[in-house]
Amino acid sequence: MRRTEYPGAIRDLIAQLRQMPGVGPRSAERIALWIVQARGDQPKEIARAITETRATVRPCKRCGFFTTDEVCEICADTARTADLLCVVEQPTDILPLERTSAFRGRYHSLGGRISPLDHIGPDDLRIKELLERVEKEHFTEIIFALAADVEGEATTNYLVELLKGKPVTLTRIAHGLPAGGGLESADELTLYQALSGRTKL
Amino acid sequence: MRRTEYPGAIRDLIAQLRQMPGVGPRSAERIALWIVQARGDQPKEIARAITETRATVRPCKRCGFFTTDEVCEICADTARTADLLCVVEQPTDILPLERTSAFRGRYHSLGGRISPLDHIGPDDLRIKELLERVEKEHFTEIIFALAADVEGEATTNYLVELLKGKPVTLTRIAHGLPAGGGLESADELTLYQALSGRTKL
Repeated sequence: MRRTEYPGAIRDLIAQLRQMPGVGPRSAERIALWIVQARGDQPKEIARAITETRATVRPCKRCGFFTTDEVCEICADTARTADLLCVVEQPTDILPLERTSAFRGRYHSLGGRISPLDHIGPDDLRIKELLERVEKEHFTEIIFALAADVEGEATTNYLVELLKGKPVTLTRIAHGLPAGGGLESADELTLYQALSGRTKL
Repeated sequence: MRRTEYPGAIRDLIAQLRQMPGVGPRSAERIALWIVQARGDQPKEIARAITETRATVRPCKRCGFFTTDEVCEICADTARTADLLCVVEQPTDILPLERTSAFRGRYHSLGGRISPLDHIGPDDLRIKELLERVEKEHFTEIIFALAADVEGEATTNYLVELLKGKPVTLTRIAHGLPAGGGLESADELTLYQALSGRTKL
Protein backbone atom coordinates (compact mmCIF):
# COMPACT_ATOMS: atom_id res chain seq x y z
CA MET A 1 0.00 0.00 0.00
CA ARG A 2 1.45 3.38 -1.02
CA ARG A 3 2.06 5.95 1.72
CA THR A 4 -0.08 9.05 1.38
CA GLU A 5 1.97 12.20 0.90
CA TYR A 6 1.39 15.83 0.08
CA PRO A 7 0.90 16.63 -3.64
CA GLY A 8 4.15 17.01 -5.61
CA ALA A 9 3.95 20.82 -5.67
CA ILE A 10 3.96 20.96 -1.85
CA ARG A 11 6.75 18.38 -1.58
CA ASP A 12 8.83 20.41 -4.04
CA LEU A 13 8.13 23.59 -2.05
CA ILE A 14 9.24 21.89 1.19
CA ALA A 15 12.47 20.72 -0.52
CA GLN A 16 13.14 24.24 -1.81
CA LEU A 17 12.47 25.88 1.57
CA ARG A 18 14.86 23.44 3.28
CA GLN A 19 17.71 25.06 1.38
CA MET A 20 17.32 28.24 3.41
CA PRO A 21 19.75 28.50 6.34
CA GLY A 22 18.33 27.40 9.69
CA VAL A 23 15.25 25.81 8.10
CA GLY A 24 15.01 22.10 8.92
CA PRO A 25 12.49 19.54 7.65
CA ARG A 26 9.83 20.40 10.23
CA SER A 27 9.98 24.16 9.81
CA ALA A 28 10.07 23.79 6.01
CA GLU A 29 6.85 21.74 6.21
CA ARG A 30 5.27 24.26 8.58
CA ILE A 31 6.16 27.20 6.31
CA ALA A 32 4.99 25.32 3.19
CA LEU A 33 1.59 24.54 4.73
CA TRP A 34 1.28 28.17 5.79
CA ILE A 35 2.05 29.20 2.19
CA VAL A 36 -0.63 26.81 0.87
CA GLN A 37 -3.27 27.96 3.34
CA ALA A 38 -2.58 31.70 3.73
CA ARG A 39 -5.69 33.70 2.84
CA GLY A 40 -3.86 36.93 2.05
CA ASP A 41 -1.21 37.95 -0.43
CA GLN A 42 1.76 37.32 1.86
CA PRO A 43 3.20 34.31 -0.04
CA LYS A 44 2.99 36.24 -3.32
CA GLU A 45 4.72 39.19 -1.65
CA ILE A 46 7.48 36.94 -0.31
CA ALA A 47 8.10 35.48 -3.79
CA ARG A 48 8.13 39.01 -5.21
CA ALA A 49 10.57 40.27 -2.55
CA ILE A 50 12.96 37.35 -3.25
CA THR A 51 12.88 37.99 -7.01
CA GLU A 52 13.22 41.75 -6.55
CA THR A 53 16.15 41.45 -4.15
CA ARG A 54 17.96 39.09 -6.50
CA ALA A 55 17.40 41.49 -9.39
CA THR A 56 18.35 44.78 -7.70
CA VAL A 57 20.85 44.20 -4.89
CA ARG A 58 24.52 43.98 -5.87
CA PRO A 59 27.91 44.58 -4.23
CA CYS A 60 29.11 48.18 -3.92
CA LYS A 61 31.79 48.76 -6.58
CA ARG A 62 34.06 50.33 -3.99
CA CYS A 63 33.70 48.47 -0.67
CA GLY A 64 31.62 45.35 -1.44
CA PHE A 65 28.68 46.18 0.87
CA PHE A 66 25.13 45.66 -0.42
CA THR A 67 23.58 48.37 -2.56
CA THR A 68 21.05 48.93 -5.30
CA ASP A 69 23.22 51.73 -6.76
CA GLU A 70 26.78 51.82 -8.10
CA VAL A 71 28.20 52.81 -4.73
CA CYS A 72 26.69 52.04 -1.30
CA GLU A 73 25.22 54.36 1.31
CA ILE A 74 28.40 54.23 3.41
CA CYS A 75 30.80 55.03 0.55
CA ALA A 76 28.48 57.79 -0.67
CA ASP A 77 28.21 59.44 2.77
CA THR A 78 30.54 62.46 2.66
CA ALA A 79 30.02 63.09 6.38
CA ARG A 80 32.10 60.00 7.21
CA THR A 81 35.82 60.12 7.95
CA ALA A 82 37.60 59.40 4.67
CA ASP A 83 41.03 58.56 6.12
CA LEU A 84 40.09 55.47 8.18
CA LEU A 85 39.52 52.12 6.50
CA CYS A 86 38.21 48.97 8.15
CA VAL A 87 38.91 45.69 6.30
CA VAL A 88 36.40 42.87 6.87
CA GLU A 89 35.91 39.41 5.41
CA GLN A 90 32.26 39.61 4.38
CA PRO A 91 29.80 42.39 3.52
CA THR A 92 27.64 40.97 6.33
CA ASP A 93 30.39 41.92 8.82
CA ILE A 94 29.82 45.64 8.15
CA LEU A 95 26.44 46.23 9.85
CA PRO A 96 27.45 44.58 13.14
CA LEU A 97 30.41 46.99 13.27
CA GLU A 98 28.18 49.94 12.30
CA ARG A 99 25.80 49.11 15.14
CA THR A 100 28.58 49.67 17.69
CA SER A 101 28.84 53.33 16.53
CA ALA A 102 32.56 52.99 17.34
CA PHE A 103 33.74 53.53 13.76
CA ARG A 104 32.76 56.21 11.27
CA GLY A 105 35.26 55.60 8.48
CA ARG A 106 35.06 53.50 5.31
CA TYR A 107 34.97 49.74 4.84
CA HIS A 108 36.47 47.22 2.48
CA SER A 109 35.04 43.74 2.28
CA LEU A 110 37.43 41.11 0.93
CA GLY A 111 34.61 38.69 0.08
CA GLY A 112 36.18 35.94 2.19
CA ARG A 113 39.53 34.94 3.66
CA ILE A 114 42.51 32.95 2.43
CA SER A 115 41.60 29.30 2.98
CA PRO A 116 43.73 26.69 1.18
CA LEU A 117 41.39 23.90 2.27
CA ASP A 118 38.49 25.59 0.45
CA HIS A 119 40.76 26.46 -2.51
CA ILE A 120 40.44 30.19 -1.78
CA GLY A 121 43.69 32.02 -2.48
CA PRO A 122 44.56 35.73 -2.50
CA ASP A 123 43.42 36.07 -6.12
CA ASP A 124 39.89 35.02 -5.18
CA LEU A 125 39.56 37.96 -2.77
CA ARG A 126 39.16 41.69 -3.41
CA ILE A 127 42.83 42.35 -2.54
CA LYS A 128 43.79 44.09 -5.81
CA GLU A 129 40.87 46.47 -5.21
CA LEU A 130 42.14 47.08 -1.65
CA LEU A 131 45.63 47.97 -2.89
CA GLU A 132 44.17 50.33 -5.50
CA ARG A 133 42.07 52.06 -2.81
CA VAL A 134 45.13 52.42 -0.56
CA GLU A 135 46.97 54.16 -3.41
CA LYS A 136 44.07 56.44 -4.32
CA GLU A 137 42.26 57.25 -1.09
CA HIS A 138 45.23 58.07 1.17
CA PHE A 139 44.06 56.45 4.41
CA THR A 140 45.97 57.25 7.60
CA GLU A 141 44.94 54.00 9.32
CA ILE A 142 43.75 50.61 8.13
CA ILE A 143 42.00 48.51 10.80
CA PHE A 144 41.86 44.77 10.19
CA ALA A 145 38.63 43.30 11.58
CA LEU A 146 38.86 39.71 10.39
CA ALA A 147 37.83 36.63 12.33
CA ALA A 148 39.95 35.67 15.36
CA ASP A 149 40.73 32.22 13.97
CA VAL A 150 43.63 30.67 12.07
CA GLU A 151 42.44 31.66 8.60
CA GLY A 152 41.39 35.17 9.66
CA GLU A 153 44.81 35.67 11.26
CA ALA A 154 46.66 34.28 8.23
CA THR A 155 44.73 36.61 5.91
CA THR A 156 45.47 39.60 8.16
CA ASN A 157 49.19 38.70 8.22
CA TYR A 158 49.24 38.31 4.44
CA LEU A 159 47.72 41.77 3.95
CA VAL A 160 50.01 43.34 6.55
CA GLU A 161 53.00 41.96 4.57
CA LEU A 162 51.61 43.47 1.36
CA LEU A 163 50.94 46.88 2.92
CA LYS A 164 53.78 47.39 5.36
CA GLY A 165 55.85 49.59 3.01
CA LYS A 166 52.97 52.08 2.60
CA PRO A 167 52.65 55.29 4.61
CA VAL A 168 49.66 54.07 6.64
CA THR A 169 49.23 52.79 10.21
CA LEU A 170 48.06 49.17 10.28
CA THR A 171 46.02 48.01 13.29
CA ARG A 172 43.94 45.02 14.30
CA ILE A 173 40.81 44.84 16.49
CA ALA A 174 41.45 43.51 20.00
CA HIS A 175 41.22 39.82 20.85
CA GLY A 176 40.27 38.95 24.41
CA LEU A 177 37.51 38.10 26.80
CA PRO A 178 34.03 38.65 25.24
CA ALA A 179 31.64 40.95 27.14
CA GLY A 180 29.83 39.05 29.88
CA GLY A 181 32.20 36.11 29.53
CA GLY A 182 33.66 34.67 32.73
CA LEU A 183 37.21 33.32 32.85
CA GLU A 184 35.96 29.80 33.53
CA SER A 185 34.10 29.67 30.19
CA ALA A 186 36.93 31.14 28.09
CA ASP A 187 39.17 28.77 26.15
CA GLU A 188 42.94 28.73 26.55
CA LEU A 189 43.71 30.71 23.38
CA THR A 190 41.23 33.47 24.27
CA LEU A 191 42.80 33.80 27.73
CA TYR A 192 46.30 33.78 26.24
CA GLN A 193 45.31 36.59 23.85
CA ALA A 194 43.53 38.48 26.62
CA LEU A 195 46.70 38.33 28.72
CA SER A 196 49.05 39.29 25.89
CA GLY A 197 46.80 42.17 24.89
CA ARG A 198 46.39 43.58 28.41
CA THR A 199 46.07 47.36 28.59
CA LYS A 200 47.33 49.74 31.25
CA LEU A 201 44.81 51.08 33.79
CA MET B 1 24.09 60.96 12.14
CA ARG B 2 21.91 58.47 10.31
CA ARG B 3 22.26 54.78 11.22
CA THR B 4 23.54 52.66 8.38
CA GLU B 5 21.07 49.97 7.34
CA TYR B 6 20.68 47.43 4.57
CA PRO B 7 19.30 48.76 1.28
CA GLY B 8 15.49 49.02 1.17
CA ALA B 9 15.09 45.88 -0.96
CA ILE B 10 16.82 43.76 1.70
CA ARG B 11 14.86 45.40 4.55
CA ASP B 12 11.62 44.69 2.65
CA LEU B 13 12.70 41.09 2.08
CA ILE B 14 13.45 40.67 5.81
CA ALA B 15 10.00 42.07 6.69
CA GLN B 16 8.33 39.70 4.22
CA LEU B 17 10.23 36.63 5.47
CA ARG B 18 9.27 37.45 9.07
CA GLN B 19 5.66 36.69 8.17
CA MET B 20 6.50 33.01 7.78
CA PRO B 21 5.69 30.92 10.85
CA GLY B 22 8.62 30.29 13.17
CA VAL B 23 10.83 32.88 11.46
CA GLY B 24 11.94 35.60 13.89
CA PRO B 25 13.92 38.77 13.16
CA ARG B 26 17.32 37.08 13.34
CA SER B 27 16.47 34.12 11.12
CA ALA B 28 14.70 36.42 8.64
CA GLU B 29 17.89 38.48 8.39
CA ARG B 30 20.00 35.35 8.02
CA ILE B 31 17.76 33.96 5.27
CA ALA B 32 17.62 37.34 3.48
CA LEU B 33 21.42 37.64 3.43
CA TRP B 34 21.66 34.09 2.14
CA ILE B 35 19.19 35.01 -0.62
CA VAL B 36 21.27 38.07 -1.54
CA GLN B 37 24.56 36.18 -1.59
CA ALA B 38 23.61 32.75 -2.95
CA ARG B 39 25.65 31.95 -6.06
CA GLY B 40 23.24 29.42 -7.51
CA ASP B 41 19.64 29.49 -8.60
CA GLN B 42 18.15 28.40 -5.25
CA PRO B 43 16.46 31.72 -4.38
CA LYS B 44 14.86 31.85 -7.83
CA GLU B 45 13.68 28.25 -7.40
CA ILE B 46 12.19 29.06 -3.98
CA ALA B 47 10.25 32.01 -5.42
CA ARG B 48 9.08 29.79 -8.28
CA ALA B 49 7.97 27.00 -5.91
CA ILE B 50 5.97 29.48 -3.79
CA THR B 51 4.23 30.92 -6.84
CA GLU B 52 3.60 27.48 -8.35
CA THR B 53 2.18 26.05 -5.13
CA ARG B 54 -0.17 29.01 -4.73
CA ALA B 55 -1.34 28.59 -8.33
CA THR B 56 -1.84 24.82 -8.40
CA VAL B 57 -2.67 23.46 -4.95
CA ARG B 58 -6.31 23.64 -3.85
CA PRO B 59 -8.61 21.81 -1.43
CA CYS B 60 -10.02 18.44 -2.54
CA LYS B 61 -13.68 18.95 -3.53
CA ARG B 62 -14.68 15.98 -1.44
CA CYS B 63 -12.58 15.87 1.77
CA GLY B 64 -10.71 19.19 1.87
CA PHE B 65 -7.17 17.70 1.75
CA PHE B 66 -4.58 19.30 -0.53
CA THR B 67 -4.57 18.36 -4.19
CA THR B 68 -3.69 19.67 -7.63
CA ASP B 69 -6.65 17.77 -9.13
CA GLU B 70 -10.40 17.89 -8.51
CA VAL B 71 -10.24 15.10 -5.95
CA CYS B 72 -7.21 14.19 -3.78
CA GLU B 73 -5.06 11.08 -3.80
CA ILE B 74 -6.84 9.64 -0.75
CA CYS B 75 -10.38 10.10 -2.11
CA ALA B 76 -9.30 8.75 -5.51
CA ASP B 77 -7.70 5.60 -4.00
CA THR B 78 -10.21 2.80 -4.59
CA ALA B 79 -8.11 0.40 -2.48
CA ARG B 80 -9.12 2.28 0.70
CA THR B 81 -12.05 1.26 2.88
CA ALA B 82 -15.04 3.32 1.73
CA ASP B 83 -17.23 2.79 4.78
CA LEU B 84 -15.05 4.44 7.43
CA LEU B 85 -14.88 8.22 7.71
CA CYS B 86 -12.52 10.21 9.93
CA VAL B 87 -13.53 13.83 10.62
CA VAL B 88 -10.69 16.28 11.35
CA GLU B 89 -10.46 20.03 11.86
CA GLN B 90 -7.77 20.92 9.35
CA PRO B 91 -6.40 19.35 6.14
CA THR B 92 -3.00 19.41 7.91
CA ASP B 93 -4.39 16.92 10.47
CA ILE B 94 -4.73 14.22 7.79
CA LEU B 95 -1.06 13.31 7.13
CA PRO B 96 -0.18 12.85 10.83
CA LEU B 97 -3.05 10.34 11.03
CA GLU B 98 -1.95 8.67 7.77
CA ARG B 99 1.56 8.25 9.16
CA THR B 100 0.23 6.05 11.97
CA SER B 101 -1.03 3.52 9.36
CA ALA B 102 -3.88 2.86 11.85
CA PHE B 103 -6.64 4.09 9.52
CA ARG B 104 -7.30 3.28 5.88
CA GLY B 105 -10.71 4.88 5.37
CA ARG B 106 -11.71 8.32 4.07
CA TYR B 107 -11.32 11.74 5.65
CA HIS B 108 -13.38 14.87 5.96
CA SER B 109 -11.74 18.13 6.97
CA LEU B 110 -14.10 20.70 8.47
CA GLY B 111 -11.71 23.58 7.81
CA GLY B 112 -11.74 24.58 11.48
CA ARG B 113 -13.84 24.19 14.60
CA ILE B 114 -16.73 26.09 16.14
CA SER B 115 -15.19 29.00 18.03
CA PRO B 116 -17.54 31.83 19.06
CA LEU B 117 -14.58 33.97 20.22
CA ASP B 118 -13.12 33.88 16.70
CA HIS B 119 -16.60 34.36 15.16
CA ILE B 120 -16.49 30.89 13.61
CA GLY B 121 -19.92 29.24 13.64
CA PRO B 122 -21.20 25.97 12.09
CA ASP B 123 -21.92 27.76 8.79
CA ASP B 124 -18.25 28.64 8.39
CA LEU B 125 -17.24 24.96 8.43
CA ARG B 126 -17.70 22.20 5.85
CA ILE B 127 -20.62 20.68 7.81
CA LYS B 128 -23.20 20.77 5.02
CA GLU B 129 -20.70 18.86 2.86
CA LEU B 130 -20.24 16.33 5.68
CA LEU B 131 -24.01 15.72 5.94
CA GLU B 132 -24.24 15.28 2.16
CA ARG B 133 -21.42 12.74 2.23
CA VAL B 134 -23.08 10.83 5.08
CA GLU B 135 -26.27 10.58 2.95
CA LYS B 136 -24.45 9.56 -0.19
CA GLU B 137 -21.47 7.46 0.86
CA HIS B 138 -23.16 5.16 3.43
CA PHE B 139 -20.40 5.01 6.08
CA THR B 140 -20.72 2.41 8.83
CA GLU B 141 -18.56 4.41 11.27
CA ILE B 142 -17.61 8.06 11.65
CA ILE B 143 -14.55 8.69 13.84
CA PHE B 144 -14.20 12.20 15.26
CA ALA B 145 -10.52 13.17 15.53
CA LEU B 146 -10.79 16.78 16.64
CA ALA B 147 -8.56 18.53 19.18
CA ALA B 148 -8.89 17.46 22.83
CA ASP B 149 -9.73 20.99 23.99
CA VAL B 150 -12.95 22.87 24.78
CA GLU B 151 -13.63 23.99 21.21
CA GLY B 152 -12.72 20.64 19.66
CA GLU B 153 -15.04 18.88 22.14
CA ALA B 154 -17.86 21.36 21.53
CA THR B 155 -17.57 20.87 17.78
CA THR B 156 -17.59 17.07 18.16
CA ASN B 157 -20.68 17.28 20.39
CA TYR B 158 -22.44 19.56 17.90
CA LEU B 159 -21.80 17.11 15.05
CA VAL B 160 -22.84 14.11 17.16
CA GLU B 161 -26.18 15.86 17.84
CA LEU B 162 -26.66 16.45 14.10
CA LEU B 163 -25.81 12.87 13.15
CA LYS B 164 -27.23 10.76 15.96
CA GLY B 165 -30.43 9.84 14.08
CA LYS B 166 -28.44 8.35 11.18
CA PRO B 167 -27.70 4.63 10.80
CA VAL B 168 -23.97 5.06 11.52
CA THR B 169 -21.74 4.35 14.54
CA LEU B 170 -20.18 7.55 15.93
CA THR B 171 -16.83 7.27 17.76
CA ARG B 172 -14.14 9.57 19.05
CA ILE B 173 -10.36 9.02 19.28
CA ALA B 174 -9.12 8.24 22.81
CA HIS B 175 -8.03 10.96 25.22
CA GLY B 176 -5.42 9.99 27.81
CA LEU B 177 -1.76 9.86 28.68
CA PRO B 178 0.50 10.67 25.68
CA ALA B 179 3.15 8.08 24.75
CA GLY B 180 6.26 8.52 26.87
CA GLY B 181 4.42 10.87 29.22
CA GLY B 182 4.81 10.26 32.93
CA LEU B 183 1.95 10.86 35.34
CA GLU B 184 3.84 13.66 37.06
CA SER B 185 3.94 15.73 33.87
CA ALA B 186 0.29 15.15 32.90
CA ASP B 187 -2.24 17.85 33.76
CA GLU B 188 -5.35 17.16 35.83
CA LEU B 189 -7.76 17.00 32.89
CA THR B 190 -5.56 14.56 30.96
CA LEU B 191 -5.38 12.28 34.01
CA TYR B 192 -9.14 12.58 34.55
CA GLN B 193 -9.75 11.57 30.92
CA ALA B 194 -7.17 8.77 31.14
CA LEU B 195 -8.95 7.39 34.20
CA SER B 196 -12.46 7.71 32.76
CA GLY B 197 -11.35 6.11 29.50
CA ARG B 198 -9.56 3.14 31.14
CA THR B 199 -9.72 -0.10 29.17
CA LYS B 200 -9.95 -3.66 30.45
CA LEU B 201 -6.74 -5.74 30.41
